Parts: sequence; structure tokens; C-alpha cells
Amino acid sequence: MRTVVAPPEFNFTHEMPVVLLDWMGNDDRVVYAARTSTSPISELPSVPMDDLKLIPYLMKHRHGTPFEHTALQFAITAPIFVWREFHRHRIGFSYNEESARYSVLKPNFYIPPAGRPMIKVDNWKPGRPKFLTLEEAFSTDKDGAYNPFWEAEARQLEATIEDNLVEIAVDAYRRYQEMLAADVDPGLARDVLPVNTMSTCWVTCNLRSVLHFLSLRTHEPTATFVSYPLYEIEVVARQIEEYVKDAFPVSYEAFVNHGRVAP
Amino acid sequence: MRTVVAPPEFNFTHEMPVVLLDWMGNDDRVVYAARTSTSPISELPSVPMDDLKLIPYLMKHRHGTPFEHTALQFAITAPIFVWREFHRHRIGFSYNEESARYSVLKPNFYIPPAGRPMIKVDNWKPGRPKFLTLEEAFSTDKDGAYNPFWEAEARQLEATIEDNLVEIAVDAYRRYQEMLAADVDPGLARDVLPVNTMSTCWVTCNLRSVLHFLSLRTHEPTATFVSYPLYEIEVVARQIEEYVKDAFPVSYEAFVNHGRVAP
Amino acid sequence: MRTVVAPPEFNFTHEMPVVLLDWMGNDDRVVYAARTSTSPISELPSVPMDDLKLIPYLMKHRHGTPFEHTALQFAITAPIFVWREFHRHRIGFSYNEESARYSVLKPNFYIPPAGRPMIKVDNWKPGRPKFLTLEEAFSTDKDGAYNPFWEAEARQLEATIEDNLVEIAVDAYRRYQEMLAADVDPGLARDVLPVNTMSTCWVTCNLRSVLHFLSLRTHEPTATFVSYPLYEIEVVARQIEEYVKDAFPVSYEAFVNHGRVAP
Amino acid sequence: MRTVVAPPEFNFTHEMPVVLLDWMGNDDRVVYAARTSTSPISELPSVPMDDLKLIPYLMKHRHGTPFEHTALQFAITAPIFVWREFHRHRIGFSYNEESARYSVLKPNFYIPPAGRPMIKVDNWKPGRPKFLTLEEAFSTDKDGAYNPFWEAEARQLEATIEDNLVEIAVDAYRRYQEMLAADVDPGLARDVLPVNTMSTCWVTCNLRSVLHFLSLRTHEPTATFVSYPLYEIEVVARQIEEYVKDAFPVSYEAFVNHGRVAP
Repeated sequence: MRTVVAPPEFNFTHEMPVVLLDWMGNDDRVVYAARTSTSPISELPSVPMDDLKLIPYLMKHRHGTPFEHTALQFAITAPIFVWREFHRHRIGFSYNEESARYSVLKPNFYIPPAGRPMIKVDNWKPGRPKFLTLEEAFSTDKDGAYNPFWEAEARQLEATIEDNLVEIAVDAYRRYQEMLAADVDPGLARDVLPVNTMSTCWVTCNLRSVLHFLSLRTHEPTATFVSYPLYEIEVVARQIEEYVKDAFPVSYEAFVNHGRVAP
Repeated sequence: MRTVVAPPEFNFTHEMPVVLLDWMGNDDRVVYAARTSTSPISELPSVPMDDLKLIPYLMKHRHGTPFEHTALQFAITAPIFVWREFHRHRIGFSYNEESARYSVLKPNFYIPPAGRPMIKVDNWKPGRPKFLTLEEAFSTDKDGAYNPFWEAEARQLEATIEDNLVEIAVDAYRRYQEMLAADVDPGLARDVLPVNTMSTCWVTCNLRSVLHFLSLRTHEPTATFVSYPLYEIEVVARQIEEYVKDAFPVSYEAFVNHGRVAP
Repeated sequence: MRTVVAPPEFNFTHEMPVVLLDWMGNDDRVVYAARTSTSPISELPSVPMDDLKLIPYLMKHRHGTPFEHTALQFAITAPIFVWREFHRHRIGFSYNEESARYSVLKPNFYIPPAGRPMIKVDNWKPGRPKFLTLEEAFSTDKDGAYNPFWEAEARQLEATIEDNLVEIAVDAYRRYQEMLAADVDPGLARDVLPVNTMSTCWVTCNLRSVLHFLSLRTHEPTATFVSYPLYEIEVVARQIEEYVKDAFPVSYEAFVNHGRVAP
Repeated sequence: MRTVVAPPEFNFTHEMPVVLLDWMGNDDRVVYAARTSTSPISELPSVPMDDLKLIPYLMKHRHGTPFEHTALQFAITAPIFVWREFHRHRIGFSYNEESARYSVLKPNFYIPPAGRPMIKVDNWKPGRPKFLTLEEAFSTDKDGAYNPFWEAEARQLEATIEDNLVEIAVDAYRRYQEMLAADVDPGLARDVLPVNTMSTCWVTCNLRSVLHFLSLRTHEPTATFVSYPLYEIEVVARQIEEYVKDAFPVSYEAFVNHGRVAP
């Protein structure tokens, strides 16, 4: 969007960094865990496996437990409204988040990138919400005719959205600081802050739970069960997906090949 | 606090109503579930038990599973910052909440009651945060001498807090409506709204999980493990506690008598 | 199978009774829970809904949480080897089972019914195990020719299986009693008992968790993800399925129509 | 106990080996996870912490979530009756176990060591079961007088117990093999096997869930909540405890010092 003119200590950004802190296991581990059924081992071999064909089989037939003998640990910074959705994942997820009761939140706020689809389509429905980018929404009129003034119109709405987010955040944060300075409970002073305030959380999960998360929080038209996630949580999910792909390439490929259904 | 002067369609309140929608089981059920160990039954007797002494025993020795064969279902309206804490209860809790992506949030906001302890004590520490009411904080000075002007000073801070909450909420909600009117994604337009926006959620749990919730979200100086919850989540928890007491009086009494440690 | 000749106090049976003890909610409840997203209610209407079309939609798109605001409670008697599989269902399941440490197990043992498919097919594979009934296995030879002696051969194997189960159970139970009479720890004396010893367990779950159980523990060739469960756990699962069908007919129909994939 | 005379391919043992396969994190990790509340980091420091005093504080006040950002992975061989109890730990535990449906169980059976307390005390009660060793039970009579024949009497009962376990196991396993040879479903043939048949299982948990397991499956008279576990699961638990102590010494010490109450 535009270059935001905000006081210098404020940070407005659409970046929601996801960092892999640590992980346990790899594709081999999934196979060894599965083989416990028929030939349990009590020591992890030091030599990599050369045959991981069991993994697509496990994925296809939804034998999920072998994927649980792994761990992935992330530090993620995202707006509160993303955490509101993220924390609804209860099974196989552990969380520790920045506290607004015990610490002072920084003036760090989310604003969307220019290309975020943000205008409702004409036949918009809850459940499968679809949105157009500003260009898509403004460059043609309802009859499909080109609108020569679309850029100005788009920019005006873009500025409105951005101004709203920035002005509320700045105003709210000033009042937050004012109340903190008066020794008001930080857990009360923060009540003025908007849900686009950024917050950092540690997330520890396993390969099974994270694939379930990815299946629900990414949109793939070819998935067996198509999801319509919030734009921002998908941005976070896609970064997580890259780490999953790197750390568990065979399991990840099997997940993609079998319709992105978590095992 | 003061009578709030806000536009008529706005609702500012410290009420966070908790309604019991339904429940399953009673104290007898806990005993029958426990007796499965030694004399399982396959039909629930129609006559109430006259001896529930097993319940304090189960509670004291932390035999928790019999308490799970029950259910409690609530509809709760509370600010987003309360839900942020509530949803961290993962085990034995099911949730469905109002959606800001699929519906328009109402101009319904939380403001604290006048008596809420809200000023940090001098030696305030995270982990065991303590707060004074405005009267406690302002009626005496640091040396304990009476401050004859305390009421005016307290009212001024009270007004500041309330004005901050009201003004941000009204301003943010106006901008929210403006963006919705321009067909902006409701899941983006709501990013301006403050965390004291009210939201309704259905919560289904069981007697074991709800006692765990109560042990963490209420402050009792005599509890075996003393918690220091946020004021507002305790107000919600205390309402839940009343329903627990009514529906499972013997289990509740045993919980209280054994240091409010969930089984 | 044959009429078992066992000491009179012994009970050999293929019956694994499942009794619904209690439940909470119905199809309407699922819809109201889902509608919390857009129009939360704080009181359950007393009038039944006339439009439950939302349920197939939720099932198809795997919106699972609304199905959790329900409960089903069962008393089930089944052999230990069935419980070994059942108790692996961790999420949304609560258990209390007969204890062999605190009580004396009854001489109640499982033997299979005559029609149980029990002979491995020629190209038998773990993962998708298939079995023939004794009639199917013995009535023709490998080339498909009719075997006129098949009944005698089948009966002989049938008798062997049954004799094995009965003789071990009777012998083991006598030794169990002998050790108990000598004041041996019941939790040690029971170590001789076979895994077909019957045990009763209370199981409390919700509509979402029970549908997940049904999807894994029943075999339906037309299911989206075909399972190959153990015969005996499927017998238990099919009884549970009847109760689910009765208590939540619309949800159940949607489950069946959408490939028996739990939401 | 006596030297068991069993066919050579049989293995009777009281050994229940527990092997740590892998783990993630250490005491430092717990502290960093906890500090996310006030000063989140996005990279794990390479230098060990010199101040871990936060850990006893977290343990004492039952701040449990920081302990979840860790993992421990074990391969454990134990009798079926131990797994029956172990698998009841649902939260924060993942399992994959040897299958009696897809593989042939080995003739590997549990028999107790000579020193196992195995005779009920006079005032034995379920819930807090206590047992005497054979020496304790037989060396004095009810009035406390020395019994000069105690060794012979103790050995006779010891032999009875052992013979029962060995004879049933050998007989049952022979029948199991006979049925397998006739192509009977392995998931049916195994129905004769006793619950002291050994089975190997992979167990993945985290520091919080494993401490909860230890608090319930070990007996310490000085614990805040005293448990009375089965002898054999405690033998397994004590081996797990050694690994926990090695991998997380500060957390382990805090657990012990605070009454062995899991956080």
C-alpha cells in the first residue's frame, strides 16, 4: 500500500515472520514409527533409509499416528486476529505467547499488502468467501467495461483502509501509553488496542497436527476438501508449509499428492 | 463508572453474561463412572444415590476420569481479550464463536465496572499481579495519610480510562462500518476493532475440564495452588462456578474442600 | 460355533453388548452451534427446527466443531483385545473400565461366532487384511473345484479354534482363582488370563469423535477412505452406529452420504 | 524367582527395557518458552543459560505450557497389561505398537522378579493397595512370631505363581502357532494369549505430559498426591524418570522438590 506516514516509533507492516526454531525427526522417523507394527526397533539407525514408499501408503490410507513421532517448533509474529484462529487448533499444538498482562506490547501493527484480495465478489457467501484485489474490483465495471479512472478510485479506497488502520492504531497506542503511565493494570490498558496489534507466539506441533493445520488454513482449488481461509493466516501457513517441505520432503509430497488431506 | 455518553446504537457494559444451555449427568453419574472399576452397571438407576462419599475420595486422590462422564454447555458473551485466554484451554473444551469473517460484529464493547481493582500496587510483579481499586489507590498517599482530594483525582483517572475505551471503540466502529459499506472483506475491515469488542461463544466442557478451568481462572488465597487471573476472566469463571455448584453440588464442595485442585 | 462344553460358571460368548446410557443434544444442536458464527443464541429453542440442510454442508466441508457440542455415553462389554484398540482413540473420548487390580474378573470370555471370516485369503497382506469364512475357505479347492468333504474339514478347524479358546480360558481362570485364594495381588494373578477375557468400560464421546471412530472401525467398500478393522471392533462399532443413527439421524445420513469421512 | 524351565525358544523375563530414542530441547528451552510472555526470542541462543531459577517458579505455580515445548521419544517393551494402563494417557502422548493383526507375536512373556511385593496385606483396600514380599508375608505369622518354615512355604507359592505363568504361556503359544499354521486370522489366533505377553511400543511425549505420567505411575510416600501404581508400570516409569532426570535435570529437580505435582 502507500508509504505509511506514522510516528517513527510505530511499525506498520504486512510481514508476519515465521522462524523454525527446532525440530525432531525426519521422513525416516515416520517409517520407523510405522514399522513398529511389524518389526519394532529400539535404536534409530544412523544410515538414511533408501526406501520411503511406505509414506505415500500411510498418507493415502490415513494411518496418522506414525506422523506424530516428530516435532516442529516455530516462533511466529502475527496480528491478534490471526492468533484468534490459530489457537483454535487444540490437538498436537503447544503455545506460549507474549503477554499483555505482564509486559508492554510494542507499537507494531499489521496493515495488508497492496495485492491482498479485499473486495467482496458480487455473489459473496459466508463459508466460501471470495474477494477481488483492488485492481480486479475497480478496473472494470459490472458489465465488464474498462474503467479508465480505476486507479484513482482504487487508491482512494486503499488510502481509506490504510488510514483507518494507522489512525486507530496510533490513537489507541497513545492512550494505552497514557494509561500505563498512570499505573493502570496493563491487562486493562490494552483493552483499547486493535486486533491488528502484532504478537509473538511459540508454537510446537508435530507433523500430523501441522498437516491438519495446513489442510484447513491454505486454499488449494484441487484439494479433496477445499478450504477458504483468512488471507493472513494463509500467509503464515504457507511459510510453515515451506519448513515442512524442507524437513519432511517425502511426507510433504505425499500430502500434496493425496489431496492435502491430513493423515 | 460514569454514565457513558455514547451514540445510542452503541452498548458499553461490564456485563459478561454466562448462560447454561444444557448439561448431562450429576454427582451420581460421577460415582457410577468410578464404580465401573469394581462393579460396572449398564443402566443408570432411576433412584438417586444416598451415599456420595466416594466423591471427596476421588477428588482428594485426583482420580479424574470419573468426572469426565458429564457435560456442561454454555453460551458466553465476553470481550475478545477474555476469549484470547479462554481458548487456550484445549483439553475437554469445544468452542464455536461468532465470526467476524462471516457476520458483522455489533457495536457492543466492554468497559470495566467502577470497583475493578485497576491500579498497580507499588511492588507489582508479573506472575502474581496485584491491583488496587481507585479508592484504595487514591484515598491515602504513600505514607498512609488521608488524601482529602482523592475522589476528584480518582474520578479523573476513571474518566480518562472510560473515555479512552469509548472514544476508540466509537471511532473504530465508524471506520469498520465505512469499510463494510465499501464492500471490504469483513475479515479485513474488523482489523481496526479493539480487543474489548464483545463476542459470543458456545463452550462445551465436562466436569473435569471445567474444574481445571476454575482452578486456574479464579483467585482464592487459600487454594493449594493460588492463581492470579485477569479480573474479567474471573468474573466469567465465577458465573460458571455457580452453575457447577448447582448441577454438581457434592463434586463442587469436594473441589472447594480439597484446595480447588482439579482431579 | 459348536455348543461349548465348559464348566457351568463360565460364560463363552460372541456377544459384545453396547448400551447407550445417556446422551446430550440432537441434530438441532449441531445447527445452533454452527450458527453461533453468524447469529448466536443464548437459549435453546423448545421448537424443533424444520430445516437441517446446514448439516450436510458442514459435513461435506468438514466444519467439525459444531458436532462437538453433543455427548454420547455407552456401557460396553468387549474382550480385552478390543479395548486395546478402542483405547487408542484419545481425542474426545473418556473411559472408565473394570479393574483387575481392585476387583475379581468374571469367567466371561469371547469366542467368535461361526460366520466370522477367519481364514486368510491367498494373497493376504497386512494393512488390508482379508479373510474367508470357513465355508468360503473349505468348500472349494484352490482351482475352484467343489470339495465334498468341506463341512467336516471346516468343523474340525472350528472345533480346534474353539477348544483352544475354551481350554486356555478355563485353565487360566482356575489358576487365577488359585492365586487369588492365596492372597496374591489381583494385579499379578490376572497375568495368566487371555486377551479374550471380557471387560466392561464406560465410554463418553461426542458426535464428532464418534464419527471419527466409526470411519476407522467399520469397513465400507464405498467409503472415501476404506478401513480394514478387526472383526470384533467392527461388531462393537456397528452397534454404536445404530445409536448414532437414532439420536442424530440427519448428521448420520450426511456422514454416510459424504463417504463416511468424519467432519 | 526360580530358574524357569521352558522350551528354549521361549523367553520369560521381568525385564521391561525402556530406550530413549530421541529428544528435543532441554531446561533452557523451558525457560525460553516461558519468557515468550515478556521477551520473546526468534532464535535459540547457542550459549547455555546460567540462570534457570525460573524453572522452580514455573513448577511451583503450575505454569505448565512452557514444559510442552520439548519432546521425548522412547521404545519400550512391556507386557500387555502394562500397555493397558499406559495407553490411558491420552494428552501429549503418541503411540505406535507392535500389531498382533499384521505380525506374529514372539514367545516373550513377563514373569515377576522374586522381590516383587505380591501378597495382600491384611487390611488390603482397593484404591490404596499394599502388598508384602514373600519373605515379609511368610517369615512371621499373624501374631508376629517367627515362622521357621517360611522359606519353604514362600518357595512353594513362588513356584505356583511361576508355573502358572509359564505353563499357560507355553500352552497358549503352542495353540497360537497351531492356528497360525492353519491360516487362521492372526487377530483371532492371538485371542488365546495371556496379558503377560510382551509387546513393544514407541511412545513420544513432552516434558509436561511425562511428568504427569510420573506423578501417577510412581509411588512416593512424600508426594503431595500419593499414587499406588501397579508394580510393573512403576518399573517402567522409574526407567523413564532416569531419562527425564538426565535430559532435563533442573526441571526434574523442581518436580521432585515440589511434591511431584506435574505443572
